[in-house]
Parts: sequence; C-alpha cells; structure tokens
Amino acid sequence: MRTTVGIIGAGPAGLLLARLLHRAGIDSVVLEGRDRAYVEHRQRAGILEQGTVDVLRAVGAGERLDREGLRHDGIELRFDRRRHRVDFPGLTGGRSVWVYAQTEVCKDLVALQLKEGGPLLFGAQALAVQGADGDRPRIPFRYQGREDVLECDYVAGCDGFWGVSRGAVPAALSRTFERTYPYAWLGILADVAPSHDELVYTRHDRGFALLSMRSPSVSRLYLQVPAGTDAEEWSDEEIWDELQRRCETTDGRRLERGRITHKSVTPMRSFVHEPMRHGRLFLAGDAAHIVPPTGAKGLNLAVGDVVTLARALVHEKETGSPDLLDAYSATCLRRVWQAERFSYDMTTLLHPAPDATAFDGRLQQARLERIASSRAAGTDLAEAYTGFPLG
Amino acid sequence: MRTTVGIIGAGPAGLLLARLLHRAGIDSVVLEGRDRAYVEHRQRAGILEQGTVDVLRAVGAGERLDREGLRHDGIELRFDRRRHRVDFPGLTGGRSVWVYAQTEVCKDLVALQLKEGGPLLFGAQALAVQGADGDRPRIPFRYQGREDVLECDYVAGCDGFWGVSRGAVPAALSRTFERTYPYAWLGILADVAPSHDELVYTRHDRGFALLSMRSPSVSRLYLQVPAGTDAEEWSDEEIWDELQRRCETTDGRRLERGRITHKSVTPMRSFVHEPMRHGRLFLAGDAAHIVPPTGAKGLNLAVGDVVTLARALVHEKETGSPDLLDAYSATCLRRVWQAERFSYDMTTLLHPAPDATAFDGRLQQARLERIASSRAAGTDLAEAYTGFPLG
Repeated sequence: MRTTVGIIGAGPAGLLLARLLHRAGIDSVVLEGRDRAYVEHRQRAGILEQGTVDVLRAVGAGERLDREGLRHDGIELRFDRRRHRVDFPGLTGGRSVWVYAQTEVCKDLVALQLKEGGPLLFGAQALAVQGADGDRPRIPFRYQGREDVLECDYVAGCDGFWGVSRGAVPAALSRTFERTYPYAWLGILADVAPSHDELVYTRHDRGFALLSMRSPSVSRLYLQVPAGTDAEEWSDEEIWDELQRRCETTDGRRLERGRITHKSVTPMRSFVHEPMRHGRLFLAGDAAHIVPPTGAKGLNLAVGDVVTLARALVHEKETGSPDLLDAYSATCLRRVWQAERFSYDMTTLLHPAPDATAFDGRLQQARLERIASSRAAGTDLAEAYTGFPLG
Repeated sequence: MRTTVGIIGAGPAGLLLARLLHRAGIDSVVLEGRDRAYVEHRQRAGILEQGTVDVLRAVGAGERLDREGLRHDGIELRFDRRRHRVDFPGLTGGRSVWVYAQTEVCKDLVALQLKEGGPLLFGAQALAVQGADGDRPRIPFRYQGREDVLECDYVAGCDGFWGVSRGAVPAALSRTFERTYPYAWLGILADVAPSHDELVYTRHDRGFALLSMRSPSVSRLYLQVPAGTDAEEWSDEEIWDELQRRCETTDGRRLERGRITHKSVTPMRSFVHEPMRHGRLFLAGDAAHIVPPTGAKGLNLAVGDVVTLARALVHEKETGSPDLLDAYSATCLRRVWQAERFSYDMTTLLHPAPDATAFDGRLQQARLERIASSRAAGTDLAEAYTGFPLG
C-alpha cells in the first residue's frame, strides 16, 4: 500500500489532517486501531475555540456544529460563594468558544472522509514507524488478521499518548517534560438541563468543581477528587451533594439534579515531547503533548498542529520548499507551551492541592480577585481561553 | 507621657504616619528602638510606586525625591538571552516608578518630623502594647536607661517583622500565612554607573539576577543564591563573573564593573498576619506582612497601610464615626494580598528553584514569552508593578 501521507490515528487530529489534505489534493491513508463505534463514542473534550470552529467550517465540517453546537460568550468563575463572569467577546474583540463534543466532531469528520476522502481503515493497528529519517518511511500494520505495510512520503503520528509514533523518535534526540497532579476529575453525564447557561468554574476549599454541558438537556459535571479515585467509590447522591456544596453562592443558586448516565475519572497530567518532528515523521495532538483538562485545550491544540502540518505539506508541494516542514516543530511548540502554561495556571488557580497551605489558599483567592477586578488580567484569561493564534 | 496616636517604629511606615497625622492636626509620639544613624543608613528597598511618590509629595517630603530620584518608565525582562522592555506609562495610562532608596525617604521624613512634627524618640524601645482591646492602650518603653509609659488613644504598630506589636494580638484571634523560598538574594552596592538605564530582571538557568541602581554613579546588583548563603562565600570577582554570565544577551551587552562597597544576603519570605487590627492597635507595614523583594512592594505596602490608617483616624476625628477604622484591616488586606500574589508571581517567574524540573523551566519561559507578546499580560504586570490603588 502506498500514499503520500500516512496518518496514524483517527482521532480529531488524524481525521482533520486527512480532510485538510484531501481538499488540497494531497492523498493520504488513515490507519485507526479501534473500530468505528469506539472512535465515535469515546467521551472526550467538549469546548472548541473560535479558531477550531473556523477551521471546521472551512473544511465543510461545520454544518451540524452550527446547528447543534452552543456558542458560549463567557464563563463564570465562582469563588468565595461569589460569581464573576468573564465576557469573552467583550475582552477579546469578538471571540467566543463553542460547546460541541469531540465525539461529535469525530462523527462529522468520519462521515466526510468515508464519503469523499481517501482510505480510512478502522481496526488497522499501526505497529511501528520505520525509516522516518530516510526518504521512504514505512508503517507496518495489522489489518483484518494480516500484516501489511503502508509506504509513504510523510508520516503523521496522530495516535495519542499511548500510540507507537512518538517511540519512533530516537531517545537520544528526544526531551520530555512532565508534571502530574495529586488530583483527578470525577466526571458525570446527567440527563438534566444545565443549571447555568455557561460553564461554571468553581474554586472551593473542598475542591474544584465544573458545571458544563453537552446539550440543552444533558449536563456534564466534574468534581476534583484525589488522584487514583475509583468512580464507583462515589454514589450518585454523594456526587450531587458535593457538587451542590462546592457551587453554593450567596445568591442561593440551586443545582438541578437528574439521572447520571456515565461516570468516570480523568487523570490530570501535563506532558510535552520535543521535538515534534523527526525526519519525515510529524507528531500531532496527544502523541506529542497532554494538558490537564481545566483549560479545555487538548482538542484545540491538536487542531493547531494539523493545520500547521497541512499548510507545510501544501507549501512543500506547491513550491518545493521544505521550510515550513522544517519549522513545524518550533512553530507548534510555541503554541503548545502557551497552552501548557494556561492549562497549568487554570488548574492550579482552581484546585486546592492536598498539601496546600493556608498561604496557597489565599493566593488562589487573590488571583481570582485580580481576574475579577482587572480588565488586563481578565483579558489575559479570555484571550487564552478562546485560543492562541493557529499555526 | 500621653498622646493621641502612639507610633511604634520610625521606619517609613511610622514616620509617614506621623507626618500624615501632623498635617491633619492629630498629635502622635514615635518610639524608635534604634538610633538615628541606624534608621538613616540601613539598606532596604529602592523602588517607589507612583502612588507612594504622590503621597510623599503631598506631605511635603518630595523635594529631594524630585531632585535626586530617578523616574523609571519601564523595566527590562531578560530571558533566553533576549531583551523585552515593559513600557509602564504606555501600558498603564501614564504611571511610572521612582528609584529613590528607602533610606533617603527615611532621612527626609526624620528631618521633617524633627523640624515641625511631634516627638520622635530614638533609642526608645517599646516593650509591649497593653490594653489594645480597651479604651486606653499603653506602651511601656525603655528610654535613656529608664522605663516609661506612653498612654494613647490608638497604637500604630509600625515596628517591623521582629517588633512587639504583632504579639499583642491574641493568638486565638490571629491567623498567619507564610511561605519561605529555597533561595535568597546576594546583593551588592558598587561604585559604578549602571550598565542599563532601567532595572533589568533576568531569568537564567543558573539563577535570577537583577541589575538595579541607587544613583547615576552607584549600581545595586543582585544574584539568586541558595538560602542560607553567607555573603563572604563570594569573592568580588566571582560576583561580577556570575552577574555577567546570567545577564548575557545575543546583542552582546556588557556589564560594567566597579568597586563593591557593600555585600549582604537578603532572605526571601512571604508572610501575612490577619487581622491587621485588634481593638485600638493597628499593624502597618512589615509588622503585618512581608513580601519577597522581587516585586519591590514592601515599602509601598507600608505606605498604603498608613495612608489608610491616617484617613480612618481623620474620619473618626471629624465625624465621630469608627467606620473606616473598623474597615482598616479588610481594606489593607485586599491590597496586601494583591501585592503578595504579585511578589510571589514575580519571584517564581524568574527564580529557578533548586528542585525545578525541566517542565518548570519551560513554564517560566512560556510565561515570559506571554508577557512579551500579549498586551494584556504586559499590562497586568505593569499595573501591579506601578502599584495597586492606595487605600
């Protein structure tokens, strides 16, 4: 099997890259180890930056997003039982975010790819990336019980944190940066209308809580829990009680309860692999970097990576110049590190650590007061939340 | 001995408070344990916020400051061998800071007080604050070998971190917040013109460095060193070499060297005592809070406290209402915690900790890049550096 760009992984990074390349007349093959149902149903992020929405629309994947996605013009910060709204368009000159689940983005891109794109093989397990530093990289893979090889000019490693791509960069050339956090998120999906029409980020001495949503009738809610917590340790009633307690306000807002349909724990990790390119192998999305979920940056970073990569591949095809491909890693990493910084800051702003001192608590409080009282500090947050420039 | 306001300590807080009260027709007595030469010569901070300068001018203590002080319209951040200037007036709508040593502020205020103010007793060691929660607080003190008592309506505890005032707040009503840092500043005074006309804050993998000045012919320079370092461990040549190394830039700027006339180590600590008021005792300045020196906030916080206290005492005198006195602690603490936050942020932005990971280093780098590239982030810093609103 042979193609121009071999794409490992059919998450949002791989699928969007295939779509961008298809529209630029560059052929690709996507290998995905899981089956289609898995890809279309795994629960992941749900916040799209303005720039991500713009890209999805530009590649023809914005129709259902525009119909079903919820534009959000701000978030609420809740602390000390008070409420402060961060007004995104007002602070950033018109930028917003959209609530539209990653799993829906994947469904839309899968449908487009199957309808008019190049091959997208589900259940095709990439085994390695070979010859990344030569002219003809190869991806051996297992598909329908047989081993095969995808030969290509370029490999896009879009196979997530646990994929094989990153391992193809020699250790001697790699540098990794990592931070783990002593807490995790217990997340639920519940059949109940959201209690507030925007996301509510709450700092409470008992821990962080996030009130979010998937749709006008489905709430997505999170509680900070100790790292290593098993979701089954929490009964439904305990979850609702704790959410209510942490989100309490002086104006007595109530949290609506409903049937919990999904319950899981998300670990919190920051991770970056440098460089993001080795020869003809380009890492994108979670294969190269992980952020804790607090800033909702994971999916949006993946989109930034593949937009940069597609632009570089088109540039090379049109001009013969490898300049943008050579700059790929540095270009992406500038944006990646800003998102890492922001995700770390949002996380440590809102989560009391188990070993936090009283001083740390007051610092969090003072940071929140600053955001609530300074236009500059609010703008800094709003710019980052709605997204750093792509590419 | 009897007065309206008994002031313990003739640092900038106590001296400025006495001056503010004198101009409002409220009498006070200042007790200072040290002698005049000590007060006028101890090396302390050297950066005055815009609001501090405005207050000093308003009380008639601005004459020499306006003649000898150096107005600074920005600072330079140096990182990754690059230089970024933060333009204070441009980002804050016209605010600046002044380089004028605390020791000079004290000289000016001592001279004014001795010329036209109430009693200012040097070598008068306050021993305690008694009856702070009653109507007639008393300050027993030792002066010229004898014990005496200062009776007053109010006590202002301006006697620094090691003074007796804070101890007069019952432990059961007190809460303290503290953070120590695993590094300190080795500071020197040198007879050499500053190498740059504004302060240079440098982040380097080897440690933080600060290029500052006392006058057009005297440089004040600092190096991050491990906590507990003895200044004598460093030879003059080692200090200059290390400063040069950390402040190196791609455009090859050189550091001018000169005779080192003073060498000392400043420990780094964050500390807040709550509340700042107990009955008729009001804590101000270092007696209530300490910041690490990175944000140059210590002196300016003290000024904010005594401006708030003087205003409240005048209000009580004029209207009979204790409202502002009752609000003193909360009013001051809002500003104190913003300064604590900013000082912590400036410190951790620029100092690599001994146990810093590679991730931490990249985070510092990303923060500096953000400040250098976002007007909002730069404004946030400039607003804080030039000073939060007084009172």
